[in-house]
Amino acid sequence: MSTPINVGIIGVGRIGKIHAENITYFIPQARLVAIADVNMTPAIEAWAKGIGVSKILKDPAALLADKDIEAVLICSSTDTHADLVIQAAKAGKHVFCEKPVDLTVPKVKAALEAVRKAGVKMQVGFNRRFDHNFRRVRDLVESGAVGTPQVIKITSRDPAPPPPAYVAVSGGIFLDMTIHDFDMARFQAGSEVVEVYAAGAVLVDEAIGKAGDIDTAIVTLRFANGAIGVIDNSRKAAYGYDQRVEVFGSKGAASAENDTPSTVKLSNEAGVSGDKPLYFFLERYKEAFIAEMRAFLDSVASDKPCLVTGEDGLQNLLVGLAAKKSIAEGRPVKLSEIK
Amino acid sequence: MSTPINVGIIGVGRIGKIHAENITYFIPQARLVAIADVNMTPAIEAWAKGIGVSKILKDPAALLADKDIEAVLICSSTDTHADLVIQAAKAGKHVFCEKPVDLTVPKVKAALEAVRKAGVKMQVGFNRRFDHNFRRVRDLVESGAVGTPQVIKITSRDPAPPPPAYVAVSGGIFLDMTIHDFDMARFQAGSEVVEVYAAGAVLVDEAIGKAGDIDTAIVTLRFANGAIGVIDNSRKAAYGYDQRVEVFGSKGAASAENDTPSTVKLSNEAGVSGDKPLYFFLERYKEAFIAEMRAFLDSVASDKPCLVTGEDGLQNLLVGLAAKKSIAEGRPVKLSEIK
Amino acid sequence: MSTPINVGIIGVGRIGKIHAENITYFIPQARLVAIADVNMTPAIEAWAKGIGVSKILKDPAALLADKDIEAVLICSSTDTHADLVIQAAKAGKHVFCEKPVDLTVPKVKAALEAVRKAGVKMQVGFNRRFDHNFRRVRDLVESGAVGTPQVIKITSRDPAPPPPAYVAVSGGIFLDMTIHDFDMARFQAGSEVVEVYAAGAVLVDEAIGKAGDIDTAIVTLRFANGAIGVIDNSRKAAYGYDQRVEVFGSKGAASAENDTPSTVKLSNEAGVSGDKPLYFFLERYKEAFIAEMRAFLDSVASDKPCLVTGEDGLQNLLVGLAAKKSIAEGRPVKLSEIK
Amino acid sequence: MSTPINVGIIGVGRIGKIHAENITYFIPQARLVAIADVNMTPAIEAWAKGIGVSKILKDPAALLADKDIEAVLICSSTDTHADLVIQAAKAGKHVFCEKPVDLTVPKVKAALEAVRKAGVKMQVGFNRRFDHNFRRVRDLVESGAVGTPQVIKITSRDPAPPPPAYVAVSGGIFLDMTIHDFDMARFQAGSEVVEVYAAGAVLVDEAIGKAGDIDTAIVTLRFANGAIGVIDNSRKAAYGYDQRVEVFGSKGAASAENDTPSTVKLSNEAGVSGDKPLYFFLERYKEAFIAEMRAFLDSVASDKPCLVTGEDGLQNLLVGLAAKKSIAEGRPVKLSEIK
Repeated sequence: MSTPINVGIIGVGRIGKIHAENITYFIPQARLVAIADVNMTPAIEAWAKGIGVSKILKDPAALLADKDIEAVLICSSTDTHADLVIQAAKAGKHVFCEKPVDLTVPKVKAALEAVRKAGVKMQVGFNRRFDHNFRRVRDLVESGAVGTPQVIKITSRDPAPPPPAYVAVSGGIFLDMTIHDFDMARFQAGSEVVEVYAAGAVLVDEAIGKAGDIDTAIVTLRFANGAIGVIDNSRKAAYGYDQRVEVFGSKGAASAENDTPSTVKLSNEAGVSGDKPLYFFLERYKEAFIAEMRAFLDSVASDKPCLVTGEDGLQNLLVGLAAKKSIAEGRPVKLSEIK
Repeated sequence: MSTPINVGIIGVGRIGKIHAENITYFIPQARLVAIADVNMTPAIEAWAKGIGVSKILKDPAALLADKDIEAVLICSSTDTHADLVIQAAKAGKHVFCEKPVDLTVPKVKAALEAVRKAGVKMQVGFNRRFDHNFRRVRDLVESGAVGTPQVIKITSRDPAPPPPAYVAVSGGIFLDMTIHDFDMARFQAGSEVVEVYAAGAVLVDEAIGKAGDIDTAIVTLRFANGAIGVIDNSRKAAYGYDQRVEVFGSKGAASAENDTPSTVKLSNEAGVSGDKPLYFFLERYKEAFIAEMRAFLDSVASDKPCLVTGEDGLQNLLVGLAAKKSIAEGRPVKLSEIK
Repeated sequence: MSTPINVGIIGVGRIGKIHAENITYFIPQARLVAIADVNMTPAIEAWAKGIGVSKILKDPAALLADKDIEAVLICSSTDTHADLVIQAAKAGKHVFCEKPVDLTVPKVKAALEAVRKAGVKMQVGFNRRFDHNFRRVRDLVESGAVGTPQVIKITSRDPAPPPPAYVAVSGGIFLDMTIHDFDMARFQAGSEVVEVYAAGAVLVDEAIGKAGDIDTAIVTLRFANGAIGVIDNSRKAAYGYDQRVEVFGSKGAASAENDTPSTVKLSNEAGVSGDKPLYFFLERYKEAFIAEMRAFLDSVASDKPCLVTGEDGLQNLLVGLAAKKSIAEGRPVKLSEIK
Repeated sequence: MSTPINVGIIGVGRIGKIHAENITYFIPQARLVAIADVNMTPAIEAWAKGIGVSKILKDPAALLADKDIEAVLICSSTDTHADLVIQAAKAGKHVFCEKPVDLTVPKVKAALEAVRKAGVKMQVGFNRRFDHNFRRVRDLVESGAVGTPQVIKITSRDPAPPPPAYVAVSGGIFLDMTIHDFDMARFQAGSEVVEVYAAGAVLVDEAIGKAGDIDTAIVTLRFANGAIGVIDNSRKAAYGYDQRVEVFGSKGAASAENDTPSTVKLSNEAGVSGDKPLYFFLERYKEAFIAEMRAFLDSVASDKPCLVTGEDGLQNLLVGLAAKKSIAEGRPVKLSEIK
């Protein structure tokens, strides 16, 4: 491995750009040498030059063929993820892949198999594990401070719903939004989900219902270690991005509240008021995006296991598919029923 | 109706004594004139005299036959509730009945029918509706401040499990403990439950499992108005009585945190620490017990509808039975399936 | 001493009534047998009968002459306190005296001397020492959790200023309002004040300034044990009664925040808002008034030292007079300069 | 002005390095082209090359003579500040000067005069004005939400005392530590200090006392607009860096609490505990250091007034000197008495 590690990014939409800038500004142990985007524009070229990228490409294959590049970030559209993971693995590149790896189990498994055969690292973009609050909860759980985990509770609400058109291609709320919470639940429980029951409703936007999805959900999880979990989701919280986690166990509970722009309270005749949560994921998980990339590049540099693996990506997908099936059939669904 | 209202109490165990003392000390518009307890002891007699009760009886029938008494509090063991309600109603007494009215639907219905025929008031002891925090949440919901309620979330954990022997006669966690949360959920939603899914586990005390019950549960509710609800229960929280409610709606959320003995924080090298929640229901709902009794006696005095009716008692029982069935059959159960 | 202790109250304005009702309803170890008020009215008579007082008098001397009465509460106007303490002591009654004992040092000293000679108990009505929050702070200090106290900080703001006419007779902000904070500071520091510097301003109501007083103040205290203290006062906080205490020491800090009617937060587009503090002293110190009376009667019953003594009353007055002198002369004033 | 602005830094100790890295990584509108340090070492050279600085100098005069450089950051030792400001101004460079400009009034005035004559910008490093919490408080004050400011309260405690040797050269607690709080008080009050009374004590470290300084202080301020202020300082808070501000006014209060590493609470048998404040100024004011530099460079680029001026530096020094005199003479000191 060279020092710094040479990195290439495929797909530089919003999330690709964030990773690119994070590597450039915050991660001296890596160097962004190339980007590739099938929808290359002059604006992207200008931006890439501005942050010092020397190879600006349209074709992902060209990037993957570049011998200098040691690690690849796959940030293109979801439908291209699995194929690009396979090609990158075959080219001997370490892979960071944005979530989800794919919306279907066979393609995810094929990608994981390619990674395994190539012996390269693979990390999937479940960034919330790197959030300072959720990491602190997990640390407390691992320290034994809450005893044996019994109930994992997650509140996860977005500030605004996506356009209904997006819902149609995203795989729906469970594969697009809740999949982050499934990952968080598994992370905090330290155990795999074995059964899912989901109750859903269309309470935010009827167009989402017409597109065949739900926008409000309560999902109950059973874990292999006996713990139970519950996630409540909404596509729209009037007060912004609501991201809370609680792990309750035999010795106590660890709970993470939202982050806010300031700690300031205003006391007046109307009451005592403070800030809303940080607006959305770019604000709330700003540091987490940097931390996940540092962790990936550290795994590559030091040949250590990744903290969020391809197997995590697969398990999260399986839970999401089970949740979809639970909604469709109105009953709890075992993970063993999926595939 | 006389002023003050003459009240009799049947059954003066822990909760009966609380009501007795609350009436004596805090509710000048009523007067406790008689108590009856089938397990009368010298200690009870001494206590009753000490608070100025003039008629100290063993036989509930004697109390109900007393023409002076206008309102009766039924605080005896659960299996006697329904019969005593019926007898009290027939005797023309207004009735406050501790929860649950009964563990079976037909007996509850018979009791409600007797009350209806007699034209007397009936209030059931779901005291939490009178808690200052939960009442404030409901006020905010009614004011429109949270918009249309979409998700009702309740955390309800006891500081210590009951003895397994109690579990056997109590009807189990859903009829003994969660029934308060079902009432709270219906109260906050302003709507009836139509479907229940319960996931349970034995994580606190194996003896509870051997007694045929669970000690940890996640219950998902669907309401007639489209809202969904979720309750998480544990028989044992190491940090004490955890009683929180959140109503999430189209315009925002109202959430109630626990009460604590003080607001004091200690900041030192180890961190910043504060009090645990008030220990258990006697501490947390001390004021709520007074407020519910005031409300009952006010309904009697002013001939107004009770704030927690016999119908509420019936609905809460139906939800509890549906939850038990859900656990037994591993599927969501509609309330229409019960009876 | 009889059981219960026979109590008489002289002066049944607002605070006298509160003590009367607290004894009647909450303190079984005492019995209120007599009241005396020079401004007796039919309304007071009706109220007194309603709570079961048998001797309803106009003349304090008649009450003090009553052989049945063992303890007297002096709740009349401030100018009568010292003389009544002296007469009560001479009559062999234990004395609870509302604060301040007097606005002049010689009269307070004379009262204390009479109490000493008579060998009766004397407690002064600095009720805040019995507040659950401030008591908790003091417990933490006494436990050693904050180490050696270094800085005592008190914020004390009223929800609304008194009428300017009151200011003229009350002795001014330091003897009327801040005197409670001086007592709290001494209580928390566990040491006597040796020097005072006060900075004052008229920022709330010009009429207070015209009456020769200030309505806003910062008072710096030096204690005999080396600690320093600071009190900030305002006669008007738009958000209500602001009563906070912090003790900072070598090992950490203990701080008490305000009490609120509920713990409920409303999250919406405007932010996250909660309750204002409890409105004023009747709400905030409701339990503290009961606790101070229990403590006094317990001292009487068990022949134990009172928790707030006549000497405390004297010291608080000295600090108040030093603060007034500091304002008048624009310099720090030593307590040894007073008298 | 070139785009980006060419910046040079004189003195690259801890704070100089922070500014250097902040410009390099976070402020694209500026370019760090040169550093100068009279104590140049190979380590500094390597660090400077690592962040892309092309001109690495020993002599500040050489840097100031460089025609390319448009703005200079003076981060050398305090005793060199004033002379370097004067030289930089004469060389036509815009100046950012770390606080304090100097410990004596004539030298500060000379520096300000040089800046005025040269017509260059000057900003002084009172970084806390750029803290997200304190900025939010000020915004609320400016919006009118707290009404007319009446009381400004600042708590400012360090996690650990400096070495006594430092105390001797720093000018003492008021010129080294409290000077930040004087600036914050003036910022929040929107008015100049006219009188200071300081009470100090040596409670943390006797060696500080032997070095002629104090380590604990309460400072009372009077502002020209009638408001009063109070600052409490300690050189050592066992729980870390305590930085709180409250502005109390006619319509309410805005108060800023500490920042913490996470929002996580652990509830267990011992209580409910959370994080200590962020450890010290590097952690707490990390973003504020970036924001102050952006503001300075923005003032330079857009020819706008600086947000913290040389005059602010002078006023803060005058308040600090008045506080020292107050301690020495045991009386309130008017600012008009200084110089």
